[in-house]
Amino acid sequence: MSVRVGILGATGAVGQRLIQLLDPHPEFEIAALTASESSEGKAYRDAAKWRVDSPIPDEVADTTVAATDPDAVPDDVDLLFSSLPSSVGAEVEPAFCEAGYVMSSNSSNGRMDNDIPLVIPEVNADHLDLLEVQRDERGWDGAMVKNPNCSTITFVPTLAALAEYGLERVHVATLQAVSGAGYDGVTSMEIIDNAIPYIGSEEDKLENESRKLLGEFDGASLSHDGVDVAASCNRIPTIDGHLENVWVEAEDDLTPDAAAEAMREYPSLDLRSSPEQLIHVFEEPDRPQPRMDRTLGDGMSIAAGGLRESTFGLQYNCLAHNTIRGAAGASVLNGELLLEEGYL
Amino acid sequence: MSVRVGILGATGAVGQRLIQLLDPHPEFEIAALTASESSEGKAYRDAAKWRVDSPIPDEVADTTVAATDPDAVPDDVDLLFSSLPSSVGAEVEPAFCEAGYVMSSNSSNGRMDNDIPLVIPEVNADHLDLLEVQRDERGWDGAMVKNPNCSTITFVPTLAALAEYGLERVHVATLQAVSGAGYDGVTSMEIIDNAIPYIGSEEDKLENESRKLLGEFDGASLSHDGVDVAASCNRIPTIDGHLENVWVEAEDDLTPDAAAEAMREYPSLDLRSSPEQLIHVFEEPDRPQPRMDRTLGDGMSIAAGGLRESTFGLQYNCLAHNTIRGAAGASVLNGELLLEEGYL
Amino acid sequence: MSVRVGILGATGAVGQRLIQLLDPHPEFEIAALTASESSEGKAYRDAAKWRVDSPIPDEVADTTVAATDPDAVPDDVDLLFSSLPSSVGAEVEPAFCEAGYVMSSNSSNGRMDNDIPLVIPEVNADHLDLLEVQRDERGWDGAMVKNPNCSTITFVPTLAALAEYGLERVHVATLQAVSGAGYDGVTSMEIIDNAIPYIGSEEDKLENESRKLLGEFDGASLSHDGVDVAASCNRIPTIDGHLENVWVEAEDDLTPDAAAEAMREYPSLDLRSSPEQLIHVFEEPDRPQPRMDRTLGDGMSIAAGGLRESTFGLQYNCLAHNTIRGAAGASVLNGELLLEEGYL
Amino acid sequence: MSVRVGILGATGAVGQRLIQLLDPHPEFEIAALTASESSEGKAYRDAAKWRVDSPIPDEVADTTVAATDPDAVPDDVDLLFSSLPSSVGAEVEPAFCEAGYVMSSNSSNGRMDNDIPLVIPEVNADHLDLLEVQRDERGWDGAMVKNPNCSTITFVPTLAALAEYGLERVHVATLQAVSGAGYDGVTSMEIIDNAIPYIGSEEDKLENESRKLLGEFDGASLSHDGVDVAASCNRIPTIDGHLENVWVEAEDDLTPDAAAEAMREYPSLDLRSSPEQLIHVFEEPDRPQPRMDRTLGDGMSIAAGGLRESTFGLQYNCLAHNTIRGAAGASVLNGELLLEEGYL
Repeated sequence: MSVRVGILGATGAVGQRLIQLLDPHPEFEIAALTASESSEGKAYRDAAKWRVDSPIPDEVADTTVAATDPDAVPDDVDLLFSSLPSSVGAEVEPAFCEAGYVMSSNSSNGRMDNDIPLVIPEVNADHLDLLEVQRDERGWDGAMVKNPNCSTITFVPTLAALAEYGLERVHVATLQAVSGAGYDGVTSMEIIDNAIPYIGSEEDKLENESRKLLGEFDGASLSHDGVDVAASCNRIPTIDGHLENVWVEAEDDLTPDAAAEAMREYPSLDLRSSPEQLIHVFEEPDRPQPRMDRTLGDGMSIAAGGLRESTFGLQYNCLAHNTIRGAAGASVLNGELLLEEGYL
Repeated sequence: MSVRVGILGATGAVGQRLIQLLDPHPEFEIAALTASESSEGKAYRDAAKWRVDSPIPDEVADTTVAATDPDAVPDDVDLLFSSLPSSVGAEVEPAFCEAGYVMSSNSSNGRMDNDIPLVIPEVNADHLDLLEVQRDERGWDGAMVKNPNCSTITFVPTLAALAEYGLERVHVATLQAVSGAGYDGVTSMEIIDNAIPYIGSEEDKLENESRKLLGEFDGASLSHDGVDVAASCNRIPTIDGHLENVWVEAEDDLTPDAAAEAMREYPSLDLRSSPEQLIHVFEEPDRPQPRMDRTLGDGMSIAAGGLRESTFGLQYNCLAHNTIRGAAGASVLNGELLLEEGYL
Repeated sequence: MSVRVGILGATGAVGQRLIQLLDPHPEFEIAALTASESSEGKAYRDAAKWRVDSPIPDEVADTTVAATDPDAVPDDVDLLFSSLPSSVGAEVEPAFCEAGYVMSSNSSNGRMDNDIPLVIPEVNADHLDLLEVQRDERGWDGAMVKNPNCSTITFVPTLAALAEYGLERVHVATLQAVSGAGYDGVTSMEIIDNAIPYIGSEEDKLENESRKLLGEFDGASLSHDGVDVAASCNRIPTIDGHLENVWVEAEDDLTPDAAAEAMREYPSLDLRSSPEQLIHVFEEPDRPQPRMDRTLGDGMSIAAGGLRESTFGLQYNCLAHNTIRGAAGASVLNGELLLEEGYL
Repeated sequence: MSVRVGILGATGAVGQRLIQLLDPHPEFEIAALTASESSEGKAYRDAAKWRVDSPIPDEVADTTVAATDPDAVPDDVDLLFSSLPSSVGAEVEPAFCEAGYVMSSNSSNGRMDNDIPLVIPEVNADHLDLLEVQRDERGWDGAMVKNPNCSTITFVPTLAALAEYGLERVHVATLQAVSGAGYDGVTSMEIIDNAIPYIGSEEDKLENESRKLLGEFDGASLSHDGVDVAASCNRIPTIDGHLENVWVEAEDDLTPDAAAEAMREYPSLDLRSSPEQLIHVFEEPDRPQPRMDRTLGDGMSIAAGGLRESTFGLQYNCLAHNTIRGAAGASVLNGELLLEEGYL
């Protein structure tokens, strides 16, 4: 018995990745696709400029695109994945939840709300219980869970693996791929033979989302005091894969070897899209690298490497595929968690 | 009356830039070119695979390349610029100084020696007086001054501008151009659609050289306690221009505005190759960028921008042209300082 | 006595290059800037997102942008440069000419009209006399001259140099830089680690414009039978500089040596922006290359190389800077020709 | 019953791809790996700098690398794949064949020899019968078959599909990926923001190999008069996938529609590595593109598109993965053909 799912914002870059991941998914069946007004009523093949590196699945191609409106989505859809622009998401996502839909959303709106669980299943699955608070407060039949920003997802699992050492201060510099900005987000003239040391709001997301993800949930409320992070974000000329340099200062003595062991032993989950090894730790000092390592674990693993002593603590690098582990795959994983936890 | 200069290691990437900068120089006249054995006796045009973006000067092209040996360089050469591989430099540079030559060297060997001044003229010209100690200790008629590594030169002037605030801790992540590794240093298969979070010994250079450059010279000895730096180095697919993300924690309160003012007002020098404005501070949050800003001040300025509050202090970005300000131009500037200070 | 000039479409990529070239121009003085409605009334610094690699000239930055309308441009402006989108150009350029303005336009509209001279001064300056026909037919006080498309300009001078051999068939494959599509024309996701074998209408432009440029003007009408060309166009990940592979079959025997000589001896003009050497012919088989050779002659030279026997005739490569020689510089050169020929 | 195979030159770029393709192959079992003297006796994991985008198979990693010498390869190896540098291949490949080994070689040495079959199985499998002539002439117990150069393989299948129309003249311009030059073949400084219109000997290979591949074999000798080609070769900044612009002039009328149909219907083979659809023809005018289409048919399909009328006949573009279909996969396919035809 598969779960019928819908995709809100199905024509965008993340929407296309969602289709690529959900089409062969054994538990989910794509039953509805929505997009903006200009696409409404068109066959998906005509509405989307398909850019993913595998052909559009035939059934998807023939599906008629619906409006992004609760009335336009069939009632027997059990789960919605949302990759709407945040301004649109802020407006319409709550309406879907009020109408009873359960939603796993990649959109940034509402991520920091106190009653919306922001979840990386391998890191803080227990935060999902915030949904009870959410339903109480909002009176929703539906429910909304969010996944973090792509650059946050890249390094938070490594911090979670080190949390037992008492993280005090974290510095992180990101080298982010162009796909993180969407298909039209970065022009070629901006980025060929160049790098841009600025991505709007990105540093705030890294700093605030990390704090929430690693915060304590006591069953009633969530502290936002997980970890103090100072982030610096850069766009570089890579297609996929965010690479990050991380410095960590901990209360307890934290050697590179201990950190490597903690990362390797940090458990993955049995969810279908969770990789066998969550954090792959390289011995080679020059790894991970975006083009070489972004597809580890079918794009769902975190790669780490270069663990070394720093002037002020520990230093390492990490990498994740930003449109799989960092976006579409993150949402699918949250959908799988919702299914396992009985929310569907 | 121009000074007759020689270039040791004249066929390499930095050697070629040295020729490009020295050929039109009003005070220096190229009088000798040396290279490895395989080039000895050839015309420079045949010995070098010229790759700089302006034609080989005719006179240089016709010059016969000499061996890198004090006996092979005419006695009436007053100043040597060295861009030898460090293993070669370690062996032959002292022999030249012993033979009486004054040398401005870009090679990394000996940079951390206690009696070798490591100089960025606008930052620590007073360290040049170490040459007295050097001559005493080594019994040289000649003298040797070094310029720092390209990635060090990029951010140290900004630290120098902020030094009055009492720098306590500095984190720096670098996004370095491929030219920094020399012409054959990075293959295309390594770097297209990729980034490499490792450059051999680079982090040590950044950390140690900064400490020496900003250390105090009391007339007799040099402290190496300038500043504590934790560095993380990356290679990215840019041709020229090292971009760096910097976090600074200071004793005194250091606001972005105060930092910008301190950088803008940090004085340049009257040396011929020193730019009018040493540190150009951008207001736009997305600058500096390598392709857009690397040629500011004919490649001799430092560009800074994105000054903002950080979770733990101040944060900003800076940029310099790695083969001009960071290598060949740095050596030329030290040559000009040697001339002005009466060492030639 | 300088000529007062205006720029129509001053905020776009070519408009910015025009400002960069015209600001220091000894014969022209920028007196008016126009753009689309959304920019009207703003200071240029606020209306344009400046992206050229030198700062906005101060006077230009302070200039108020006017509407692209003959009534909004001062009467004492003697010459207009137009880099309007072709759909806009088709509508408003004739109105300016009717209102008495003399115009050098880079826009593609009207280029193939029988009474509009399409001119590369070094190739077919005599076509300018078509302006008499134009004024007769259109009743204009003003006049309009066009320059060809950037990819056409790159190879037509080399064909002109070989024309005496009786050109029968030409094949050309282009490797075009992203700047040719304007600042937002090619996204980074389209072109990093990729090439696109299609540029809308580009092949027609190459084929038809070449035929017109090399056609005979008998004083009354212009034949469009200059040369038969088959073109294939590609976009590649370079910033500036269109590289082209050319095969030529000629009536007469045409050796690589004879072709090289014909190209080298093909005369330049005395116009201020015409380079000393129009066609620079490389001996090295691997030249010209975009990044190395696009700025030859301040970006106004054509570079050629790789002249060799082909299975069916002669083969070679050529290159020009697409936004200087191929666009803004081409328009400026036509403006200089209009001045020299007494049209201003 | 699997065939025991050896790989000569197993540590190079093509050798690594061969391992990646042969390790999971159901009919072949890797039984020997050879490399140059410096690797002899080492475990493969230590001898090779592994750079393919999947991990080294464990068994391969543990294999001891042998010398590239017939005496060092076990007698029970039935088939050798060779990806030796051509200078080495010219010397040692014949020795292996004389010693009785059957060989499928990717090395360029000997490709044009009259008694060495140069084979693309889907195009000219019948040329394999040349092996009888070869054995007669050379007195070999073994046998040697070659696959063509990567850029030749990309377009020859499309020509074969059109051969019935009577091909008279072909022009081809290539846009080749950096991996075609091997891991260290193209430096980053040569190719970032650049293109190089020259690849040593490449144009000759395209022209001569096409002529041989499409020549007639009458059972005794092979004509080398398949087709007249004029080639122009370029290196561009792509990792994998050679894109080619092709112009074809045929005796018979050849419309784009007829050409598309001929390509689509051109048969593939039942060999294990032959793709279901040999030539995939795109309707979209801007396809194929290297990054989007190089992995069609697991990298063994040819992609074609942009079929259109040319000034002088027909014009189109084609693409193949240069290290799979164009090299390692091509050799594996020839090995499968040797097996099917009873040579093993």
